[in-house]
Amino acid sequence: MGKAHSRALRDLRHLAVPLRPELVSISGRNRESLEQARELWGWAEATTDWREQVADERVGLFVNAGPNALHFEPTAAAARARKHVLCEKPLGLTAAASYELWQEAQRAGVVHLCGFNYRFVPAVRLARELIEAGDLGEVVHFRARYLQSWGWDADPALWRFDRAEAGTGALGDLGTHVIDLARYLVGEIASVSASVRAVVPGREVDDHFVATIEFDDGVLGTLEASRLARGRINSNVFEVNGSRGSVAFDLERLNELEVSEAGSFRRVLVTEPEHPFMRFWWPPGHIIGWGETFVHEYAHLLEAIAGEHDVAPHGATFEDGYRCSEVVAAILRSADNGRREEVEYRS
Amino acid sequence: MGKAHSRALRDLRHLAVPLRPELVSISGRNRESLEQARELWGWAEATTDWREQVADERVGLFVNAGPNALHFEPTAAAARARKHVLCEKPLGLTAAASYELWQEAQRAGVVHLCGFNYRFVPAVRLARELIEAGDLGEVVHFRARYLQSWGWDADPALWRFDRAEAGTGALGDLGTHVIDLARYLVGEIASVSASVRAVVPGREVDDHFVATIEFDDGVLGTLEASRLARGRINSNVFEVNGSRGSVAFDLERLNELEVSEAGSFRRVLVTEPEHPFMRFWWPPGHIIGWGETFVHEYAHLLEAIAGEHDVAPHGATFEDGYRCSEVVAAILRSADNGRREEVEYRS
Amino acid sequence: MGKAHSRALRDLRHLAVPLRPELVSISGRNRESLEQARELWGWAEATTDWREQVADERVGLFVNAGPNALHFEPTAAAARARKHVLCEKPLGLTAAASYELWQEAQRAGVVHLCGFNYRFVPAVRLARELIEAGDLGEVVHFRARYLQSWGWDADPALWRFDRAEAGTGALGDLGTHVIDLARYLVGEIASVSASVRAVVPGREVDDHFVATIEFDDGVLGTLEASRLARGRINSNVFEVNGSRGSVAFDLERLNELEVSEAGSFRRVLVTEPEHPFMRFWWPPGHIIGWGETFVHEYAHLLEAIAGEHDVAPHGATFEDGYRCSEVVAAILRSADNGRREEVEYRS
Amino acid sequence: MGKAHSRALRDLRHLAVPLRPELVSISGRNRESLEQARELWGWAEATTDWREQVADERVGLFVNAGPNALHFEPTAAAARARKHVLCEKPLGLTAAASYELWQEAQRAGVVHLCGFNYRFVPAVRLARELIEAGDLGEVVHFRARYLQSWGWDADPALWRFDRAEAGTGALGDLGTHVIDLARYLVGEIASVSASVRAVVPGREVDDHFVATIEFDDGVLGTLEASRLARGRINSNVFEVNGSRGSVAFDLERLNELEVSEAGSFRRVLVTEPEHPFMRFWWPPGHIIGWGETFVHEYAHLLEAIAGEHDVAPHGATFEDGYRCSEVVAAILRSADNGRREEVEYRS
Repeated sequence: MGKAHSRALRDLRHLAVPLRPELVSISGRNRESLEQARELWGWAEATTDWREQVADERVGLFVNAGPNALHFEPTAAAARARKHVLCEKPLGLTAAASYELWQEAQRAGVVHLCGFNYRFVPAVRLARELIEAGDLGEVVHFRARYLQSWGWDADPALWRFDRAEAGTGALGDLGTHVIDLARYLVGEIASVSASVRAVVPGREVDDHFVATIEFDDGVLGTLEASRLARGRINSNVFEVNGSRGSVAFDLERLNELEVSEAGSFRRVLVTEPEHPFMRFWWPPGHIIGWGETFVHEYAHLLEAIAGEHDVAPHGATFEDGYRCSEVVAAILRSADNGRREEVEYRS
Repeated sequence: MGKAHSRALRDLRHLAVPLRPELVSISGRNRESLEQARELWGWAEATTDWREQVADERVGLFVNAGPNALHFEPTAAAARARKHVLCEKPLGLTAAASYELWQEAQRAGVVHLCGFNYRFVPAVRLARELIEAGDLGEVVHFRARYLQSWGWDADPALWRFDRAEAGTGALGDLGTHVIDLARYLVGEIASVSASVRAVVPGREVDDHFVATIEFDDGVLGTLEASRLARGRINSNVFEVNGSRGSVAFDLERLNELEVSEAGSFRRVLVTEPEHPFMRFWWPPGHIIGWGETFVHEYAHLLEAIAGEHDVAPHGATFEDGYRCSEVVAAILRSADNGRREEVEYRS
Repeated sequence: MGKAHSRALRDLRHLAVPLRPELVSISGRNRESLEQARELWGWAEATTDWREQVADERVGLFVNAGPNALHFEPTAAAARARKHVLCEKPLGLTAAASYELWQEAQRAGVVHLCGFNYRFVPAVRLARELIEAGDLGEVVHFRARYLQSWGWDADPALWRFDRAEAGTGALGDLGTHVIDLARYLVGEIASVSASVRAVVPGREVDDHFVATIEFDDGVLGTLEASRLARGRINSNVFEVNGSRGSVAFDLERLNELEVSEAGSFRRVLVTEPEHPFMRFWWPPGHIIGWGETFVHEYAHLLEAIAGEHDVAPHGATFEDGYRCSEVVAAILRSADNGRREEVEYRS
Repeated sequence: MGKAHSRALRDLRHLAVPLRPELVSISGRNRESLEQARELWGWAEATTDWREQVADERVGLFVNAGPNALHFEPTAAAARARKHVLCEKPLGLTAAASYELWQEAQRAGVVHLCGFNYRFVPAVRLARELIEAGDLGEVVHFRARYLQSWGWDADPALWRFDRAEAGTGALGDLGTHVIDLARYLVGEIASVSASVRAVVPGREVDDHFVATIEFDDGVLGTLEASRLARGRINSNVFEVNGSRGSVAFDLERLNELEVSEAGSFRRVLVTEPEHPFMRFWWPPGHIIGWGETFVHEYAHLLEAIAGEHDVAPHGATFEDGYRCSEVVAAILRSADNGRREEVEYRS
């Protein structure tokens, strides 16, 4: 993740955005690998103590791309120190922690963004714009699943399998992405019915979850995530059906959006100059990659910091990060008690 | 449906199967359209009273392809009269009725088959064979959805929207197919959590349902069916993920099976001579249609009647039809009470 | 081929067409296999002498689905005996023979159809209708290729590899289909530049040809056919680009037509009731197979015999069969002499 | 193109390559837009006289991404001044000019690379590796086409439509890419038969060409390029068929390679760590974009300059650029005289 964030920040020094980032300082736990990263990725300084960065007056934006267990404390401290903050998802290890982080950022009055970078895939943004414009009519169904397969052959020592470091498994890592997309594209989630599984023997965190959801307006949907779906490498797929049309997306083909307006699906290559974010890039048909979603995310954030627009609705705020955590919590409760669980949001 | 059944029966007079069907008699409610059907589809006689057929000594196989509300009584009577029986799904309007029908057939000692014709798609049978052969390893996930879109623009007077005639809507019509495929491919369903919706105002039956399921061995899955998914015409899609590989299928491309054994998916065109049922048809790559699934279903049934094999496991018996009805019942209970419902099967 | 023709004729006894075929007599060379075919496929009589059929007053339509070398003589005799005639492609082994056959049929005043059954794929007919309606604007490019792979592993004793029986290889077997589709969809072919190869050692006929073509109006295209393209089973693919839109087709997915009207391609499932020939079949999305193209072909022919319309332009007449042969001849000349060859058509 | 080259060079300052580029100086014709580009893209200096760059001792690598008519003179001068050179394709406006440029670079002893960046698509490199490893057996067919559609609606004043600036149209712009890929993947082209068209009235350069080709070993292929193929945005497609397997590629899905080894095609997502160039990027399934091909191209070039390997065979040298120009010349001759033209290469 550090590589993707660093490259995006460097890229933004050379694109038409209102603020030009300086790469002041990078932090990490291992001195040696940190220095290598600093040198390779183009950071001026490196430190093993994030408190130095929080205290550093030159730092205007604090980015937290560390392991899940390290999201809360440094981000909260940075916000209190009046840094703008970008924190990777999941925001906190619990809904309560996520709520606190949102409150801290809000009290501090800083710009806050939760790293749901898939909102910044041009095809995803286009899907949202089509829905808002009424091209699909009234939304009636939503389904999404995020399937990967690396969980079968992975090193058991990975922090992602450590409950203390990661909190949850596929649910927090992949499931939060589809929860956020559900909220971004359709609306607030009112209730969930879910089951969660640790399939691989000895694994501390879940490999797989399934859920049905009900949105505020009664629309039904399904969610699923797994790290054990052979043949699926990075298959973050969603489909929205409306009374007049549908859209369908697969992250493995992130430059494409399937759009149905009159019966059949058109495969729209989302690379025209008028498509979201494509002003930054190449001629039509010359596709972009996953790394570019971070460039778009930072461009959006820098514009928000410069006062050109709010982070919401197109960027995920810490409130979005918190609300996602409540959905995760309701999924875990439902999996535990076998009941449809209402999601309760604090305000 | 009458057209598809009639054509398949005529086809079977010209294929290498152990029994050659005679088209003795067709029944229906409207005298005029019945006579047209008789003449066009090649039946020797027509009657508006199915009791005549049940009493007819020439009739060895009784096929019920009528509206759902007319599945029980004629089929039960035919079984009691020692006719072999093929009944379209859903078997009965309730699980209790389905159970009774199964018991009647069993008591009568006749061959009984419930019309889950998608078991007879060559790609579906191939999927089952790959799973049985262990090519996918241990199954860990299942997901299926059957999406159509005609519900938006349909004539409200259709019997399929009449609760008395149809019982349920998308659930009984499309959902039963995916329930049966889940059972055929993975195993018995132990519990369900579901929501069901009638979306279109004034509709007496459901347009949409979503469910998570748990199989006997703890494996999780998702099910969904809708008649309101714009852009999806007849999209009966499933995917099975195992510890070593996966298969994926879409009825809109019924000659293809996506198979993953080592990372990526291969698109297998299921038209080679060694593929299931393809001995009846054309050279490789010359695809078959939906109508041919009925030919395979009848070929299987005729072989069973001739004693070459049992209907199970590759054909759905009335027991399978009954068990599917129990899953439907559990889905309706869960949708009603918001709880994960265990499916109770009588034996 | 006999199986496909027989089944289609039987099907037409049960569809809404103006004439109902009787299966009077089948002929063949091997007495034993002929009798089996007669019995299985539902023919009343069988004979090893086609002359008996030509002399048979009950025969109104003579169908020639034999090996290429047996196309000319029996078909010519049948036409002279005032039978309507359907002859499989390629019409004759040479352009001169094809011309003679056309002339015979024309002199006899019978209805004549050359078996280019892919004109009767609903998606192909739809492509033609879209072009005629001007939906694509002015056609500017055409490309087509017919790729199979069975040639690698085939029995060398097959009649298709025998020069005396087959005339040519991939060119006459597969190439004629794409030549006919080029003519049907775009227009007359004025000149060709081509190369032809027998790749497999010892093979008497070609395995592969490539050609560029120029239509009457100057539009350029490419043609190719092979029996040695690993991974391609029955991949008859074409694409037409016009000033306003495009269509693309693949026979392995014969129920689909890719249509571009405004930038991107829509995947049209050609199974709606209003789509060509679909009045004969199933509800939307319930696909048809390769065998059904013969039903459509015969339905068209029977309507022509009944005087409802001409065979042309939607059916291929013997004139079309002859003109295709002239393109084949020009391809062979060009392959031989390395020059762009004009195609000369006799009238 | 300047944006893509600049970003790649900046990226290479932060990747594990043996030389770290400095962005010394950028040149251009328009002072104002040049200064903007310099500032935005991160170049230290800007000049309207490329001769200054050629004379600049700090410059070790001279990159020519200007219009076709400006490829020859500056690149030749840079080579003579002992700069390593990267020149965009087509190398010269004529085969003779391309030959001269190659000779200049060779005489100067500098490293030279012609900008065929599609050799640096991971899926293309993988295709080459599979062929070299014998996974496809003996190659028997090749087909490629590069289709775009912007030519219909383009500004007629574009330099790409100016014969003096561009030389040719689709042939030089798109056709050279498929010619180079044919040579890279299969081998030397011995002869061509071609037709070329300017379709849009008033256009000075070609919009479309088609060709059949014969490789040194007798294998046949087809080539095509167009800027007028509605629905195709950037569709650079090739397929190689061998005696044991096949590969197929489409630039619109540049992270995928279709691979057939045993009958059917597998869709390989070319994003695993062991795939070509992917060591630079993201986790599996997180795709890269078109811009990254320039990073790979420069990485290869910098390694060559550092002496780690030659530019050939995986990079296109000026000899490759020259040979491509000879194929273009033969295509133009064949289009003119209607004959299969042998391609004569000087050494």
